Amino acid sequence: METTTTGRRSPDDAVGYVHGYTDLEARRLDDQAGVLAGLLHGGTRYPAGSRVLEVGCGVGAQTVQLIGGSPGAELTAVDVSAGSLARARAAVAAAHPGAAVTWVRADLHDLPFADAEFDHLFVCFVLEHLADPVAALAGLRRVLRPGGTLTVIEGDHASAFFHPDSAPARAAIGHLIALQAAAGGDGLIGRRLHPLLDAAGYERVTVEPRTMYVDGSRPDLVQGFVRDTFTAMVGSVREDALAAGLTTPDEWERGIDGLRRAAGPGGTFHYAFFKATAVAPAGGAAAGQAPPRASGSTSRA
Amino acid sequence: METTTTGRRSPDDAVGYVHGYTDLEARRLDDQAGVLAGLLHGGTRYPAGSRVLEVGCGVGAQTVQLIGGSPGAELTAVDVSAGSLARARAAVAAAHPGAAVTWVRADLHDLPFADAEFDHLFVCFVLEHLADPVAALAGLRRVLRPGGTLTVIEGDHASAFFHPDSAPARAAIGHLIALQAAAGGDGLIGRRLHPLLDAAGYERVTVEPRTMYVDGSRPDLVQGFVRDTFTAMVGSVREDALAAGLTTPDEWERGIDGLRRAAGPGGTFHYAFFKATAVAPAGGAAAGQAPPRASGSTSRA
Repeated sequence: METTTTGRRSPDDAVGYVHGYTDLEARRLDDQAGVLAGLLHGGTRYPAGSRVLEVGCGVGAQTVQLIGGSPGAELTAVDVSAGSLARARAAVAAAHPGAAVTWVRADLHDLPFADAEFDHLFVCFVLEHLADPVAALAGLRRVLRPGGTLTVIEGDHASAFFHPDSAPARAAIGHLIALQAAAGGDGLIGRRLHPLLDAAGYERVTVEPRTMYVDGSRPDLVQGFVRDTFTAMVGSVREDALAAGLTTPDEWERGIDGLRRAAGPGGTFHYAFFKATAVAPAGGAAAGQAPPRASGSTSRA
Repeated sequence: METTTTGRRSPDDAVGYVHGYTDLEARRLDDQAGVLAGLLHGGTRYPAGSRVLEVGCGVGAQTVQLIGGSPGAELTAVDVSAGSLARARAAVAAAHPGAAVTWVRADLHDLPFADAEFDHLFVCFVLEHLADPVAALAGLRRVLRPGGTLTVIEGDHASAFFHPDSAPARAAIGHLIALQAAAGGDGLIGRRLHPLLDAAGYERVTVEPRTMYVDGSRPDLVQGFVRDTFTAMVGSVREDALAAGLTTPDEWERGIDGLRRAAGPGGTFHYAFFKATAVAPAGGAAAGQAPPRASGSTSRA
C-alpha cells in the first residue's frame, strides 16, 4: 500500500511527520505511553472476542496499553509506515509475549477491510497530523459496524501553561504549532474533537479533557512527562524551527530553558488531552465509502 | 475594621476589586456557584461540629455550597466588605433557611480570632486579588489548629481556550489579566498554588486541576458557564479596559463576539480551576503572627 501525502508518513517521507522518526522519537513515545497510560486509557476496555482496530498505531506505544487493558480483544493495528510497524511489533512482543495482533500496513484513508469488519476503532495522536480529519473519520465509519464505538485521543498544545511562566517557552511551543500547521496538521485539534466527530456523522459524541497536571510532589511525572515527553516533543522540532527562520539558536535555547525551569524546584505544568467516544450510526457502512479491498500487507504476530 | 489596599475591597473602594461590585456582578457570582458547585466543591466535606472559617466569602456564592456540603459544621464567614456580607447573609437565608453562620467583617490579614480557633479554612477566588498571597496564607496559619486543613480554589485565565479560536477574544482575556495585575492581583494564580502553599509553610500540599470543558452536548453549561460566567467576567472589565487604553470599542466587541461564537453551534470551551488542600504543621499557631484581637464586627445569622 502506498504512502499518501496526508497520513502518517513513512521514514522515507519523514519531513511530513512533524515529530520525525528517530530512535529518540521512538523512545519519547514509549515514555509518554507509560506515564500517560492511566490518564489516557482509563475507561477503555474492550470485551473478549470483540474486533478492535487501532488506526495509526505508530511505534506501538498505545498498542501495548490496549492489549494490557483488553487482553481478550482481537486486535488489528494499522500504520502506513513499515518501519513503525516493525517497532510496534517488537514493543508488543516485549511487553506482552504471546499476544496476538494482526499487523497491517495500510493508509487509513484506504483500509483493506470489509465493511463493518470491526466492533471498535481506536485512534490516538493521529488526527493531529491529517489535513482533513473529518474526511478521515467519515471514511473510518465504513469498517465500523453500526452501533460500534470510536475512541479518539488528541492533545491541544495551547493547553500547555506552566510556572514560572516563560515567554520564550511559549514562543517555542508556538513554533511547534506553526510547523505542524505548515505540514497540514493541527496541534490544537483537541478542542475540536466534538465538532469533528459530529461532522463526520458519528452519534452520541462525548468528549472529556484528560489533564496532566504536574508539580514538585510528583517527581516521576516531572521527569516522565514535563521533561521526557513535552519538552522532548518541543525540542524535537529545533532544527525545523531554525530552518524555517522561526527562531534563532539563542532564542530557542531560552525557550527550552523556560520549560526546564517549569520542571525545576517550585515549578508546575499543565497540559490537557481530550478523549472522545462516539457510536457509528445505523447504516454507517453504507455511507458511500469505497468497497473493501484485498490490498495491504497483513501479518499476524 | 478598616479596608486595606491589598484585600478584597469595600464598595467604596471598588476600583481595587477588578470585577466590581454591581448587582450584575453579584448575579454572575451566584450563577457561577450554581454551575460550578459540583466541580469545585467535590471532595470538600467537613465533619459535624468542626469549626470552619471561610476567608473572603464575598456575596456568599461559595458559602451556600459549603453549608450544603457540610450542614453540621460550625461555619464562620469573613469578608472585608459590609455590603458583600449583607448579600451573603441574604443568599444563605434564601438557600438554607435556618442555617447558622457567624458573619464577621474583617480583613483577612488581621483576623479577630484566637490562635488555632478553626479546624478548617476555605479560601475560594480570593488569593487572585492579593498583592502578597504567601504572606496572607502564612498569616492564616495562625487561626488554624495544627493538623487542620486549608482548602484553596483559584482559576487561571490562561487556561481558557476555545473553538473556534479567536485572536480578539484572546486579546480581551489578556486585558482582563493585565488589569488584574495592575490592581496588584494575578489572574494566572491557579498554576502557582502548589509553590505558594509550600512557601507559606503548609504541609502535605496537594493540588489538582478541576476543569470545566463545555461543548454543544451541554447547553446548560454553554449558558451557565461560557456565557453567564466566563464571558460575563471578561465583559465586566470593558470600561476599565477602554479607560486604560488597552482596546477600542470595536476591538472589544470583536473579542466578546469571539467568546460568543465559542458558545454557538459547534463551539467548545476549556477552563481549568485548581483546588489545593494542605495541612497546618505542628506549631503553626506560633509562627510569629499577630496575637488574636477582639476587633471586627461579629454577628450570628
